[in-house]
Amino acid sequence: MSLQKLSDSMLPVIEQELNHAIIQILQPGLDDMVAMMNYHMGWVGEGAGPEARGKRIRPLLVLLCAAAAGGDWRGALPGAVAVELVHNFSLVHDDIQDQSPLRRGRATLWTRCGIAQALNTGDTLFVLAQLAVLRLAETVSREAGLEAARFLQETCLALTQGQYLDLSYEGRVDLSEVDYWPMVRGKTAALLEACTYIGALSAQAQPAVCQAYREFGNLLGLAFQVQDDLLGIWGDAASTGKSTASDLVSGKKTLPVLYGLSQQGVFARRWAQGAIQPDEVQALRIQLEAEGARRYVSECADQLTRQALEALARARPAGEAGQALDELARRLLKREN
Amino acid sequence: MSLQKLSDSMLPVIEQELNHAIIQILQPGLDDMVAMMNYHMGWVGEGAGPEARGKRIRPLLVLLCAAAAGGDWRGALPGAVAVELVHNFSLVHDDIQDQSPLRRGRATLWTRCGIAQALNTGDTLFVLAQLAVLRLAETVSREAGLEAARFLQETCLALTQGQYLDLSYEGRVDLSEVDYWPMVRGKTAALLEACTYIGALSAQAQPAVCQAYREFGNLLGLAFQVQDDLLGIWGDAASTGKSTASDLVSGKKTLPVLYGLSQQGVFARRWAQGAIQPDEVQALRIQLEAEGARRYVSECADQLTRQALEALARARPAGEAGQALDELARRLLKREN
Repeated sequence: MSLQKLSDSMLPVIEQELNHAIIQILQPGLDDMVAMMNYHMGWVGEGAGPEARGKRIRPLLVLLCAAAAGGDWRGALPGAVAVELVHNFSLVHDDIQDQSPLRRGRATLWTRCGIAQALNTGDTLFVLAQLAVLRLAETVSREAGLEAARFLQETCLALTQGQYLDLSYEGRVDLSEVDYWPMVRGKTAALLEACTYIGALSAQAQPAVCQAYREFGNLLGLAFQVQDDLLGIWGDAASTGKSTASDLVSGKKTLPVLYGLSQQGVFARRWAQGAIQPDEVQALRIQLEAEGARRYVSECADQLTRQALEALARARPAGEAGQALDELARRLLKREN
Repeated sequence: MSLQKLSDSMLPVIEQELNHAIIQILQPGLDDMVAMMNYHMGWVGEGAGPEARGKRIRPLLVLLCAAAAGGDWRGALPGAVAVELVHNFSLVHDDIQDQSPLRRGRATLWTRCGIAQALNTGDTLFVLAQLAVLRLAETVSREAGLEAARFLQETCLALTQGQYLDLSYEGRVDLSEVDYWPMVRGKTAALLEACTYIGALSAQAQPAVCQAYREFGNLLGLAFQVQDDLLGIWGDAASTGKSTASDLVSGKKTLPVLYGLSQQGVFARRWAQGAIQPDEVQALRIQLEAEGARRYVSECADQLTRQALEALARARPAGEAGQALDELARRLLKREN
């Protein structure tokens, strides 16, 4: 209830501020540069619309944390814009790196305008993110702006480290769970941690409170990723909206797969022989479950979820935003919606 | 004299700080990530050495401006590191975009480790640059750190805009001088402007002085680029160390070429018919000169050089660093060395 109500007032403002952050660079001769960003953001071009935009979970998280920590969420808007632009910068570059043809059901930017311009568009989104976060120095305080900028940079460093690991794991068969956590921390958890921390910073909350929000974001990210990995293999395609076959066929190094590899059993031996074919998926899901992967990963997700909600409780989120935050976390982790 | 002396003390410190900014991210499992940056920076791998590193003109400019504006150049080191990392981030991405096989006589990073990892390495250098510049908040002051970070972001935005224009000009024959300046401002002048401005900010110089340094950097960058364009067609290959044929054959949109296109004469008609072949270069150089391009571009370079030195004089650079700065500017623009 609280989440719906607050989302309804925050999301249109987020969209407007994101749009403003991008079109501000418009100058004569740069129309197409802006158009490429507008396409990627889901505002224009084939398939534009809410589906193409994603859920804007990250900026929403910034604003809800700012409000729940006692601040005015409007002051946190530059932080919200910054994290969403960082997220989209990383998507544009990821799609080039993975040679992905589709993103949210539409042609990826690089397939439409070539690697060179897509790479540059990603760089531009990144710069705009950094410019946005520095504006917290004006909307909140110099200290908050500097600390948020510094933290966002550390986050981006973690993102590139996670991406490096992900790319370097390609084609390797000697991996195990120990290789999973640093990758997922960089690729998923770091940015959610930045969302909750920057939200709390924007409210000028006490350091211990900021720290609790930060831990909440980090654990939320880890729990979300582990849950996502679980659904990627055993999820119900109809309710998750993604093909449950894809994670095994795509060769992604998810937690169930890495757990399976470390068992050095039937699954690991098959994996070492090369790409999984779609007609093997059903048998391998059952094999992986028999080797204990499903139970292990499920327990992992439950534990991280519990820890995330405990961290949120320690932050003592207040009022309607506090309720909305709890609701958002539970919804993300259960993946209703 | 002053330049040689100050370079000798500053360059080793710059190299050490650059190295520190990169190896600080080393963690178990990330050796290769650091190795890719170390290779690109010219420290390790085939062909490593001073030639592979470039001249580190940009960080030197930061430190000389800081000292000439009355500051302690050691406090400006985070700014020096930041501009050189931004420069190298843009080189790594440029090489991918242009599919260049060689950079400073060595294999480019993407040809060694693939587009995906090279792209991510460029992103990492960019993040490290942003982290570095924020450290000016500690070595100089919070205000200087925030303003330098903000300005460096604006610079990076100009870089991506210049890069967008450069890429978008490929294959176009309807260009003229008016298309040249925004591209060159972004691709060359913006970063030199950041060097001189961040140097002056690090010395906590008065706003009018910072502004004069900033104009000096911008004009120095424009003058340098125009001079480079001139040498790229009419320079003496032996003394410039680059093939004089390359700029016409490569199809680069340099000022002489754009001037020639706007004359709509013999040169423009030949250009419109497709790539220039090496055996045509000599005749086209003469044609372009006959159409007035050489004189026009030469006058342009002289005027910008004069304006750059005037801006430097307005900044009233002091002491040995002031002399070194004047020497550096004159040397860069005459291209002795």
